[in-house]
Amino acid sequence: MKDLLIGNQEIIHWLNTRSNEINVNIQPSTFSKLEKWYSDSNTGDIKHDSGKFFSIIGIDVKTNMGQVNHWSQPIINQDEIGILGIITKKIENKLFCLMQAKIEPGNINHIQLSPTLQATKSNYTQVHKGNKPIYLDYFLDANNKPLVDQLQSEQGARFIKKRNRNIVISVNQELPVHENFKWISLNDIVDLLRFDNIINMDTRTVLSGLLYLNDNVDKSNNYSINSLEDIIRWITFLKINCELEVNQIALNQVSHWEKNEEKIYHEDQKYFDVIPVEVNIEGREVASWSQPMIKAKQEGLCSFIIKKVNGIYHFLVQGKVECGNFDIVEMAPTVQCLTGNYLDNKKDQLPFLDFVLNAKKEQIVYDVMQSEEGGRFFKEQNRNLIIQVDEDDIFEIPRNYIWVSLHQIQRFILFNNYINIQARSLISAFVTREHEIN
Amino acid sequence: MKDLLIGNQEIIHWLNTRSNEINVNIQPSTFSKLEKWYSDSNTGDIKHDSGKFFSIIGIDVKTNMGQVNHWSQPIINQDEIGILGIITKKIENKLFCLMQAKIEPGNINHIQLSPTLQATKSNYTQVHKGNKPIYLDYFLDANNKPLVDQLQSEQGARFIKKRNRNIVISVNQELPVHENFKWISLNDIVDLLRFDNIINMDTRTVLSGLLYLNDNVDKSNNYSINSLEDIIRWITFLKINCELEVNQIALNQVSHWEKNEEKIYHEDQKYFDVIPVEVNIEGREVASWSQPMIKAKQEGLCSFIIKKVNGIYHFLVQGKVECGNFDIVEMAPTVQCLTGNYLDNKKDQLPFLDFVLNAKKEQIVYDVMQSEEGGRFFKEQNRNLIIQVDEDDIFEIPRNYIWVSLHQIQRFILFNNYINIQARSLISAFVTREHEIN
Repeated sequence: MKDLLIGNQEIIHWLNTRSNEINVNIQPSTFSKLEKWYSDSNTGDIKHDSGKFFSIIGIDVKTNMGQVNHWSQPIINQDEIGILGIITKKIENKLFCLMQAKIEPGNINHIQLSPTLQATKSNYTQVHKGNKPIYLDYFLDANNKPLVDQLQSEQGARFIKKRNRNIVISVNQELPVHENFKWISLNDIVDLLRFDNIINMDTRTVLSGLLYLNDNVDKSNNYSINSLEDIIRWITFLKINCELEVNQIALNQVSHWEKNEEKIYHEDQKYFDVIPVEVNIEGREVASWSQPMIKAKQEGLCSFIIKKVNGIYHFLVQGKVECGNFDIVEMAPTVQCLTGNYLDNKKDQLPFLDFVLNAKKEQIVYDVMQSEEGGRFFKEQNRNLIIQVDEDDIFEIPRNYIWVSLHQIQRFILFNNYINIQARSLISAFVTREHEIN
Repeated sequence: MKDLLIGNQEIIHWLNTRSNEINVNIQPSTFSKLEKWYSDSNTGDIKHDSGKFFSIIGIDVKTNMGQVNHWSQPIINQDEIGILGIITKKIENKLFCLMQAKIEPGNINHIQLSPTLQATKSNYTQVHKGNKPIYLDYFLDANNKPLVDQLQSEQGARFIKKRNRNIVISVNQELPVHENFKWISLNDIVDLLRFDNIINMDTRTVLSGLLYLNDNVDKSNNYSINSLEDIIRWITFLKINCELEVNQIALNQVSHWEKNEEKIYHEDQKYFDVIPVEVNIEGREVASWSQPMIKAKQEGLCSFIIKKVNGIYHFLVQGKVECGNFDIVEMAPTVQCLTGNYLDNKKDQLPFLDFVLNAKKEQIVYDVMQSEEGGRFFKEQNRNLIIQVDEDDIFEIPRNYIWVSLHQIQRFILFNNYINIQARSLISAFVTREHEIN
């Protein structure tokens, strides 16, 4: 099959070739020059002329958790559920995924391996009205059995209650492989997670739904440190004890944030900027548009501490409140710092941060830079780190942490809105290659 | 143990005695005479002077589901998570529950069997500020292991995104049994579900969390018609294809509803009225207050069709959109009609309605009148009906119905926000006495 790539080298070569064929040019712009975008004259909210895509709004947040109990901030508002879909096919008993070498303006390296389909719900359900996304029909065909079909959350600090449908289907028929698409085995994709910024965020979240394909997942059921009921009680406790009140406010009412023509920024130069950019893509495709993007002020860190108990992986999960969460608290990595400079952290202020940063080399089983979604986030990459400790290493675990086994993680992913996107991104490494990070 | 009641007769005798000792008088009032309540001068919303309890607001609803696609209506807004808690104790290897003979103004029969604790979150978490509810300390004591601790939804057509914490704890120590409380065995409570209006709604929803105590639940895992993954895909499909936009509007902007001094009502005399009432309770306790209540225009019907497949109960579950749902679609009984007169139903307009109303006598395994929560709903009772069909009885099942086994129901209850309150109310009958409705 000529449209099938095998091994890291072939795949990276293909991505590089694609990358050389195009010229992606992102220039800073000004808000008033952003074509088809405007600032609402009353609120200052930044909106698209069509009323679609997304907008930048303000929110006012009150909570009893953390060190800051009241703040306001800009946030992305994208009402529509997005669809992230991968078509798969069994070839000689291996699962292959139809992957796309996709340009996103915010990608550090322009092109990353993306799902077969990234579409909005209105693309998906009202197909008569607009441009029908490529391969959409396969997802609508009831003969193609979904292996995964879930609603999952996006970044709770950047999006207000956004969710995506994560769907993986299995097809039997032959199908055309369009330019920029290739069949790539699931194993190769998981291998490529060990390279910086190759597998995009959308792929990583969809992959995490395939955790059940890992042979070790089912066996682990009876050997977990905590029962599913224990974990539900734990998260209920956190939800009950957490006050979180989020109200939409006008963007121009957000305190401690300033706006000029070039950016919206926090007065202490913290968190992120909202920047207007001009995008030009030249090559066989030519496209240009402008849009606002989110530019993080520093690289972040997402890290899981894991250990094997009774031969089964356990993850030290954090119950984390984020202002855009669909249901107050989601399960996050042991350490998740995306919105402040974690290197400035005062000792012990952030549980386990010191521990993961000072892990011994032999404890580090995964250490990769991974990108955030390049359609909204400007060249944002975060360090993804997995630290494996010994079974009898003892931690003091704060009340908002709990050990969750691989099998249980899979259950919580299945039931939606429990595992946050940063955790799913890290967990995608466990989909089929679990024995390699042993 | 003198505070332990055994058997239906003892318990009903106790409730009747309690009922005879008091005089509950509910009188219609007028909105302007409602003490401590007022209509907001801008919106007409009905609010309590304290800003607490609940308010009656308006919502505007747009959806692509059902026969009416755009409407507005009054709805109860109660921001706070309520706590419904039962204290249990093992006595001679049987589980006993500390139950309360509780007066609620809306109860048809004034007194029903209620959980040990009904409190609001602010009662629960800010105990220093207010009256500490009786038995609260036992729920705060970490030594008392919770058997259940979940967040569950309330009526999605009457409340806007309301949830309650359902908690059951097990204690070992002796504890004082206050007036109006008794130890009653779980088996007796489940038996009493077969009597009209004895077990209140709050008890029924908490009980449903104890489904896992049913010996048949665990065995059923491998014999379900559909896998958990199938069911998640099914509900994801419904959520994706359902448009539901709910916006708060001023109560005085709600179309087709009228307000006079005695009530807020739909111009076609349908659905429900909001009525102001004056409550007087005389007996050993004396209390009086006034409040708005919801008065349904007719009795409703909630019915499950069930069947045994491979010896395991399966429930024909409906994916139902209700405007106050936390996450668009919840699993509801096969037939749920609460807001229109189901006897007026034109044949086949409501799937399975004809079927359950014309079931043969030997197919009816449960047929009881059960009350809605008497603190908000005025003398509202609905017919609860379970119809058991043969394994090979075939139904045409519309896309928004699916067979779910007893074990799977238990899983979905555990993971919260999947099983609606009407379904949980019916399912509570399966908690321990499953063999009796064989």
